[in-house]
Amino acid sequence: MTESKVPDIIIGRMPMYLRALTRMAEEGKTITSSQELGTRLGLSSAQIRKDLSQFGEFGKQGTGYNIDFLAEQIRRILKVDGLWEVALIGIGHLGTAIANYGGFVDRGFQVAALFDNQPDIIGKQIGRLTVQPMQTMVEEIRHKKIRIAMITVPAKVAQQVADACIEAGVRSILCFAPTSITTPKGVRVEYSDPVLHLQRMTYYLQS
Amino acid sequence: MTESKVPDIIIGRMPMYLRALTRMAEEGKTITSSQELGTRLGLSSAQIRKDLSQFGEFGKQGTGYNIDFLAEQIRRILKVDGLWEVALIGIGHLGTAIANYGGFVDRGFQVAALFDNQPDIIGKQIGRLTVQPMQTMVEEIRHKKIRIAMITVPAKVAQQVADACIEAGVRSILCFAPTSITTPKGVRVEYSDPVLHLQRMTYYLQS
Repeated sequence: MTESKVPDIIIGRMPMYLRALTRMAEEGKTITSSQELGTRLGLSSAQIRKDLSQFGEFGKQGTGYNIDFLAEQIRRILKVDGLWEVALIGIGHLGTAIANYGGFVDRGFQVAALFDNQPDIIGKQIGRLTVQPMQTMVEEIRHKKIRIAMITVPAKVAQQVADACIEAGVRSILCFAPTSITTPKGVRVEYSDPVLHLQRMTYYLQS
Repeated sequence: MTESKVPDIIIGRMPMYLRALTRMAEEGKTITSSQELGTRLGLSSAQIRKDLSQFGEFGKQGTGYNIDFLAEQIRRILKVDGLWEVALIGIGHLGTAIANYGGFVDRGFQVAALFDNQPDIIGKQIGRLTVQPMQTMVEEIRHKKIRIAMITVPAKVAQQVADACIEAGVRSILCFAPTSITTPKGVRVEYSDPVLHLQRMTYYLQS
């Protein structure tokens, strides 16, 4: 098993498989097939079999996949079978919604530190966390050995905040600011920007 | 120009190009190159030239791209040179953050209707909009000829809400609920789920 050789695009689909399997388990199902997964995800069953075969043999021909087992294997592959601490920077409307979101912990993540630079936001209590001032961010991320940051600051300061996070030891950044940030080798960035998704669909719309 | 033949994956990158170009224009730049765009976006300059060549000739060898012109062309290709009305369903923490988000209008979208089924949320005023009850949704979307919906409801009701939107005439859905929804041919779905992004990066993290 040479996981490092698996193409990024396949790794990119694994979280979708995990999400679909988790949902099936919640619905009380115990067994699924590449056909059923394909229908849920809008992919061909051949694609799903090919993707999963990159990591080993997870199902038997004709009997399908055991949902709990397959979900557990994907969690292990993606390293989300434990709990990663995540720093959240920028506690405006969106940051607050994310800090309040209950769907992280059972999927491998825990928001562990909140930062902002606005005097009226610093000190605010969200759940069991207190919003801390930006000046303490690098020290705090380093001290807690946090490797993942979600950035919900305005576009014009996103690069600067990302640079500080990386200096502190962050290696994965999820950027919600509507801008691109550049990072050194070894640091991954993903973007969450609803407008990018919307603009991907209007091309196909008849007005 | 046979735009319908352009691969989905290239259409998927065009909004990123547009975002980078808009940011460059804000920085006061007027000309860019495939090299510069590539560096910002983590893509090769060859990839960028190849993608853009699908739609015609936007730059001259050696002189680069005129940023405003290229941005305008991409807006036209993606059909975001006008303003699409969007329905937003589910006005909890996330829905409220999205309804308050100021970054839609200058990128081609306007949140034009808010819906929820909670008595304490219905009637709430957000900006110039009032949250309307779910029972009026189909009629309202149909009446306003809205083709795009953002769904920020709990996972277990996302499919049902999507079905109602489609019945009302919606053809593009951006789903923020952490679940997959199935749609008939001709209806596109994109997903915004921060955990999918996070899980795509942990695979590469050394713990």
